[in-house]
Amino acid sequence: MAEFPIGIKNLIATFERLPGIGPKSATRLVFYLLNTPENYVAEMARLLVALKKDIKICKNCFSVSEKDLCPICEDEKRDKMTICVVERAIDVMAIENVGGYKGIYHVLGGVINPLDHVSPDDLKIYQLIERIKKIKQENKEKNLEIILATNPTMEGEATALYIKKRIVEIDDQIKISRIGSGLPMGADLEYADQATLSRALDGRRNL
Amino acid sequence: MAEFPIGIKNLIATFERLPGIGPKSATRLVFYLLNTPENYVAEMARLLVALKKDIKICKNCFSVSEKDLCPICEDEKRDKMTICVVERAIDVMAIENVGGYKGIYHVLGGVINPLDHVSPDDLKIYQLIERIKKIKQENKEKNLEIILATNPTMEGEATALYIKKRIVEIDDQIKISRIGSGLPMGADLEYADQATLSRALDGRRNL
Repeated sequence: MAEFPIGIKNLIATFERLPGIGPKSATRLVFYLLNTPENYVAEMARLLVALKKDIKICKNCFSVSEKDLCPICEDEKRDKMTICVVERAIDVMAIENVGGYKGIYHVLGGVINPLDHVSPDDLKIYQLIERIKKIKQENKEKNLEIILATNPTMEGEATALYIKKRIVEIDDQIKISRIGSGLPMGADLEYADQATLSRALDGRRNL
Repeated sequence: MAEFPIGIKNLIATFERLPGIGPKSATRLVFYLLNTPENYVAEMARLLVALKKDIKICKNCFSVSEKDLCPICEDEKRDKMTICVVERAIDVMAIENVGGYKGIYHVLGGVINPLDHVSPDDLKIYQLIERIKKIKQENKEKNLEIILATNPTMEGEATALYIKKRIVEIDDQIKISRIGSGLPMGADLEYADQATLSRALDGRRNL
């Protein structure tokens, strides 16, 4: 094989490390960039550098932010008595994109996964418990709801159950809910897997 | 929807412009980058800038190169009497990756496509004809072969036929071939489209 310019090869190798991008896609992307205007590529490079410099983690909910507190935590209108617990900051974005949710968030930074050596101490579970204690102290009369919105995977389910146990230990009056699971919209019963179908039946609602 | 850091939003928008990357993939990539070490992202930014600065177009075959001439055109061992005509530089890479091809290349920079306002003059067809004339002058005794390896699409086929006509005009002794088309390896006759099957039958070979 002939030697291709090292700049092209290195950039392909860098793109290949991204999730969901294999050698063929990486090559295609780099050759596409070769044919794009220089200012587009320069802008992409500038934004990549800025990404690491300018983006912080919110001190309160551990989502992404430009300041110490994210816009959601700063927003007076958000309901501070409803906390949606998610695995990653990208999940906050997904829920915000739907619109309608008026509460605040707590980003765990992952799920408990013994195979990957991720224990509860590696996640922001301690911080969640401390947040809940503080909110309960400051708002003794109000009802607090914790929505456990980790993914409906084995690890996500286990993490949700673990967090539920920890919350009940400090106060069994807190409402704890789990996001609904079942057939996704537009799905076909015929092709659904057994676990999903079983969950859909368990989670049936009155009409 | 809450306002996400502008740096994240802009980078997502930039990634979305890449081929084959939609809003969801772009978001996923940016959040992946947020969790990678800073030096990886910095390296990617550096390579992007370098890509546009350091990569040139080979004066001879119009493939990508770090110097005025690409390594393939400079290589003494390559057979200068076999020219493989391809649409884009990425096709050169694809053929080189297979190994085995010992000739040289000519990159057209696209295909004739009236709908996209791409005429023969927009491609490196004139340069190909000049190259062929020069090679024939310098090597009167030797046989020259031109392999037309544009894609087996409507436009690729038309471009190959057009180039064939132009070459025959200057010298009808030059061997002109077209890359084989038919069923791809591992394919299933049952699922093949009619055009491919018809081409596979036309292109049958003795065993």
